[in-house]
Order: sequence, then C-alpha cells, then structure tokens
Amino acid sequence: MAIITLTTDFGIKDHFVGAVKGTILSNLPDVNIVDISHAISPFNIQECAYILKNAYRSFPEGTVHIVGVDSELSPENQHIVVQVDGHYFVSANSGVISLITSEVKPEKVVEIRIPNVISGSFPVLNVFIQVACHIARGGKLEVIGRPFNELRELREFEPRIIDNGKTISGNVIYIDNYGNVVTNIQRSLFNAYRNGRDFEVSARTTKIKEIHTSYNGIINFDLDKSQRKGPGDALALFNSAGYIELAIYKSDLNSVGGASSLLGLNYRDTVTINFL
Amino acid sequence: MAIITLTTDFGIKDHFVGAVKGTILSNLPDVNIVDISHAISPFNIQECAYILKNAYRSFPEGTVHIVGVDSELSPENQHIVVQVDGHYFVSANSGVISLITSEVKPEKVVEIRIPNVISGSFPVLNVFIQVACHIARGGKLEVIGRPFNELRELREFEPRIIDNGKTISGNVIYIDNYGNVVTNIQRSLFNAYRNGRDFEVSARTTKIKEIHTSYNGIINFDLDKSQRKGPGDALALFNSAGYIELAIYKSDLNSVGGASSLLGLNYRDTVTINFL
Amino acid sequence: MAIITLTTDFGIKDHFVGAVKGTILSNLPDVNIVDISHAISPFNIQECAYILKNAYRSFPEGTVHIVGVDSELSPENQHIVVQVDGHYFVSANSGVISLITSEVKPEKVVEIRIPNVISGSFPVLNVFIQVACHIARGGKLEVIGRPFNELRELREFEPRIIDNGKTISGNVIYIDNYGNVVTNIQRSLFNAYRNGRDFEVSARTTKIKEIHTSYNGIINFDLDKSQRKGPGDALALFNSAGYIELAIYKSDLNSVGGASSLLGLNYRDTVTINFL
Repeated sequence: MAIITLTTDFGIKDHFVGAVKGTILSNLPDVNIVDISHAISPFNIQECAYILKNAYRSFPEGTVHIVGVDSELSPENQHIVVQVDGHYFVSANSGVISLITSEVKPEKVVEIRIPNVISGSFPVLNVFIQVACHIARGGKLEVIGRPFNELRELREFEPRIIDNGKTISGNVIYIDNYGNVVTNIQRSLFNAYRNGRDFEVSARTTKIKEIHTSYNGIINFDLDKSQRKGPGDALALFNSAGYIELAIYKSDLNSVGGASSLLGLNYRDTVTINFL
Repeated sequence: MAIITLTTDFGIKDHFVGAVKGTILSNLPDVNIVDISHAISPFNIQECAYILKNAYRSFPEGTVHIVGVDSELSPENQHIVVQVDGHYFVSANSGVISLITSEVKPEKVVEIRIPNVISGSFPVLNVFIQVACHIARGGKLEVIGRPFNELRELREFEPRIIDNGKTISGNVIYIDNYGNVVTNIQRSLFNAYRNGRDFEVSARTTKIKEIHTSYNGIINFDLDKSQRKGPGDALALFNSAGYIELAIYKSDLNSVGGASSLLGLNYRDTVTINFL
Repeated sequence: MAIITLTTDFGIKDHFVGAVKGTILSNLPDVNIVDISHAISPFNIQECAYILKNAYRSFPEGTVHIVGVDSELSPENQHIVVQVDGHYFVSANSGVISLITSEVKPEKVVEIRIPNVISGSFPVLNVFIQVACHIARGGKLEVIGRPFNELRELREFEPRIIDNGKTISGNVIYIDNYGNVVTNIQRSLFNAYRNGRDFEVSARTTKIKEIHTSYNGIINFDLDKSQRKGPGDALALFNSAGYIELAIYKSDLNSVGGASSLLGLNYRDTVTINFL
C-alpha cells in the first residue's frame, strides 16, 4: 500500500487536515496517510526543513511526502516535485527540501504543470494531492511537470568555520518539545575539524566540555543518587538526528523549564565550538 | 474499506481518543479511522459545525462521521443519525449538522434507540461507536433508530440583509490556525446581492475594497520586493470553504500576530459589506 | 492486521512521531498504528500510567503498546516487555504499567536483550520498534528478552483508608482536557467502604454530597431552564474510567474555566470522602 505523508503548518484544529485526508482517500482508497507534523510554526521553512529531513528517512523508499507550508503559487514560489534518495516531495520551491538535497543529489526535479487547475488559497488540496496520488499510483513525473533547475536553497543552515578550523560558529535552528536547543552543527562536521583536540561548546554564559550520545550520559550511576548530577543539569548531546544539541536533563518547559528558557537561548542565537 | 471520521472536543492528551479508536477497531477491524479534529473548543457547537461542514465534503460518499461535542443524552439533546448528501452523521441533536442540512435536504434522520445501553458520561464510546460500526457494516438506520423530525438549527450563522440589499451584516464565526477571521458571509450570498456594484468590507477600523481568491492576491509580483505589499498587510478573501475571510498575509499568531489580534476581531464581532 | 499503539511525551510538532511511524512501516508494512497520546507532560509517569490504563482496554487482545516516556536505558531503568491482560507493553521499567499490573497479574515480564543495538537518546526508535514488530509478527518474548521480576510500582496512586474506614483520603492524579479533576479513588473502593452511609466529598472549600454517573446528572430537566443548575456548577462524578472526578458542568479552561481553576485544585492535592 502506497504511503503519503503530510507535513504542514495547518494546525490540528481547523478543517484543513481533515479535508486533505478525505480528498486523498476519495482519489486513492488504498493508501496509508501518515502525519509527520501539522504544528510547524506558520510559514517557517527552516523548522519544516529540519523536521522533514529527520522524519523522511525512516519511511520506505517510494513514499510521497506532501509539504504544506507557504505553498501558494507565485512567480517566485513554483510548485515542484523533487525525487531524491528514493523519496518524492511535493512542495513549493521554498527551500524546504534543501537540507536533503544539499546532502543527496536529487534524481529528478520537475515544476508541476496541470492543465485547468486553479491553485487558489489551498494548493495542497487543489494541486498537491492530485500530484501525490498520481505518483503513489506509479505515474511518471513527466506527465505532471516539466524539468526544473532553480531549486531554492536555505543559507541559514550552514555553520561557519573560523580561524583556520579553530572555531565552528553555528546557530540555533530548532527548539524541540522538551525545550532542547538544536544547533546547525552536525556530528560529521565536528568530527572533521576536531583532530583529537579538546573543545568547549559555548552559548551565552553556558560552557560545556563534553558531548554525550544519550541524555543520561551526564549521570554517573555508580554514585549514590544524592551525589549525582540529574534533572536540571545542562549537557551537550549529539542528538538522534546527528546535530549538536544543548539540553537540560529531564526538562519540561511547562514546569522546571527547558534548555531554551533556562539557558536563555532562542532560535537563531549563536553557539560556538572552540577547539583548544 | 469503510471510513469513520472523528470530530470532537476531547483534546489530544487524554485517553478519550485512544479509547474510542480501540473500541472501533475491536468492533470493526477493517476500518479506516480518520481524525477531522479533536481540538474543538469544549462545547462549542458553532466551531464544530464550521469545521465539520468544510471537512466532510472531501470524503467519499458512505463515510460515517462521529461528532463528539456536547453529546450527553438528555430530554433536550437526543442522540441522532442524519443521512445527508450521501454521508452519515452520528451526533447529538445540538445543531452541529445544521450548517449542512440548511444547504442540502437530509435523506433520513433517526433518533438512536438501542436497548440495554447506558449512555453515561462517555456516549461516544458507549453509543455512537456501536451505531457508526453498524452503519459502516452496511446496516440500516431503521434498526438502530426511529424517525425524528426535530432537528435543531443554529441561528448564529445567518447574516442579515439590510436596507434593501445595500448592506450585508455578518459576524465572525471562526478564527483559524493563522489568526485569520472567517465571517458567515458566503461567496454565493455576496454575489447574489452585489449586482456589479463596488463595495466596502468593514470590520472595526478596517476597510477593504477588494476580495481576493488567494492570500498573495494582494501582492503585485511585477514590483520590486521593496515596493510590494507583503507580510503584515490585511486583505479580504473568499476562502477555500467559500466564506469571506479577513486575513493578514503570512500571519503567525505567536510572532507577528494574525488578523484576529492585529485587527482586534473576536468571535461574534460584526463584519459588514456595504455596496456603493 | 496487527495493531501497535503509541503513548509518548514526544509532542506533535517534532519529527519524533513521524520517524517512529516511518520506521514501523519500514519494518512491518501491514500494521495499524494508533496514537493514544503524544501529549503526556514530559517525563510524567503518573499521567502516562493513567492514560495508558484507560485506553489500552478498548483495544483487541494481542495489541502491542509502545510507551515512550522517560525510556532512556540505565541500570535503574531497564527496557522491558510486560504481557498482561492479553496485551503487550514495550516500555522502560518506570512504573508506567503498574496501574494495570496492580489489578491484573502479568502473564509474562521480560527484560529486553538484543545484541548489537545501541539504545542511545532515542530508544523508542532504536529498540522498542524492533521489539514491537517482533511481537506483532507473532514472535516469542523469549527471543528478545529474559525473565525479569523487578517490576517497578507507583505508590502515588493508592488512596489511604483512615479512622476504621470512616474516611478515604485520596489525591488528584489527573486533570483532563476540560479541567476536570480526577482523583485516585475508584468506584469499587468507594462502594466497598460505603456500607449504605451518606457521605461528603471534600476538596479545599468544595463539599459535595452526591456522586453522579453523567455530567448532566446535576440538571433537573423537569425545571424551567432559568431555574436549573447548569454551566458553572460543580459536581462529583464516577467518570467513565471508574474514578471519582470533580467537574464543572460544561467547563472550558480557556473561557469560563474548569474544575481545576475554579475549585483551585492541582495535581497531587488532597480529596477526601467522609462517610457520615
């Protein structure tokens, strides 16, 4: 059974998601529709790009991903399909796929051209579903589009290498459900520049000299509970998506607070790594 | 495979939605359960009616829609099934279906009567699922109910025509995920009274003389970006559901604000159209 | 088709839920994945235990329930599978299943042992899915684990019997979507101690002498509407999960308020029943 995923900023209250699912099922009764997220901040392409990149890889090849964020058609925001890494993305040319295409060369990119369709204010419903169902049925991209080579890129995701590789200067690109702060510095980049050196991760007044691979990496379970670090302590982590993240152990934004609130870090703030 | 949709005010945290889905699957293993919304404001029949009307139409005929908002049984809130437009709605007689039945005459309405069932504080679980699965299996309405002709209506949705059609006086009936403000004035009504005249949409201090069909209809893409209207500018729109909506281009309630916050418009506030 | 449910504190915005669903579908294409909740308060085992207990029972026997709350592996937080009441729970040994196992003796408990797997910071993805799919395919627990008999319990859920059964002293264990306040006093316990006596439910300044079985149990529908109790009035209820609950009729936390805000009751606050 074909899989179609949905990643949008529609929210979960309005009729938008229901209307989209009903239309897909009316077009293609035997399909597995999976929500990736409907809680992208409105029009936030960077957030959407991060979520999409880290969710799509788990799905089987051939999956069709509909992206419904800032998707109104305009001369500067074409409707496209990107075939990359064995997956299909139906989206506007907003840069939302560029986190993926910067790492894996796309197999095919087309601009959607369907006769007699009015895109209007709800292009996911009026255009993307028709295209996604066509692909899910095994249809060719050439039938619904024409070759396109102006794929937009997102610049914000690139950390800078400074001082001959002595410093990596990155930014906060995402704050997760626990308030954990994700940077744009990937483990692979860190490893490429480290060369066995000690290092310090800095963000505002926080300085950390170790990067863990699990949140409880900061806990020494050999110590008595009263002597351990624990909930409330800050740590750095290679998160499960491969990015360096600043976290508070067992944080809850609504009670004790999370890394974002406790360390005073917001979207786009600077995080640097200095190799010593 | 039969489709059963869910539209409730249960929220997404509690066990209610999980219990409902588990019970449906225990009764009918081969069914496609689709969430329309679980984020209706508690007991808000108007909100629910708007969402339901604009989502149901996308589903195939024969779909069974369970509505779980203010559904406790009482002498004044009967449990009913409405068959209309080829769809089945299992609901309390709260008026929630009346936005649909005011436009399409119902094919059949029954009051649910099942022996030996205690409706209690969770009628969706105890009553509606049993009825929905019966219908999804192809069962007749006559088996689970008896004819009913006291379908409740919602008055709030009707705009008033004033001054021999010179003015349409409507209200805000819904505020969406982007803060966009939906009125109860439908495109069809507007067109019926316009007669080619110019017009002005008024809401508090906002006056708008044009109604677009896409949000970026206010942007002149021929101009240089620095000279264009854009994010933050107010517009009027025939939204994808066919209602006149006041919107802010690329609004986000949590950052720049939306039409509701920026134009100071709340649920039930007046929006008028004056033909000039 | 096998059913796998998900109960987590992942939230609905991040890529976590999407990644989990994609991985399940990559492992087991013919499976029905059902969300119970992704909105558990981070690391809140008590909340999760209450939701899980009241949702699982609705699913058919053989269902596999993945619990993703506080699931990082440590010497004190083993990964386990509990087979109980015909269902399978894949979880950390956090006490989250103990509300169920305190009422139904588990059929089998194993500690998960899979060679060459790194649990890391996302054990649901790296460990639990593999185990859940194994079980959903009909695999034996012995293949993926070894017998375990240190199942953790949650103490907080036990009300105390005071003064030779004259008083039951309980606590608030959950606040639901409507602001209704759920206590840890079950109907069965209440009935076991009542012995036909009158009683008073007390919580802060609220005193109630009757317990209903539906929310509108406080309404006398024989009276004219102007003379009835109604929205805003407090009541006690045996809720659909069998617990005593304090509620406000037709409450909405965001507008009129709910029992939690109007009666000033928070998580862990005391609620007592005095038999007269």
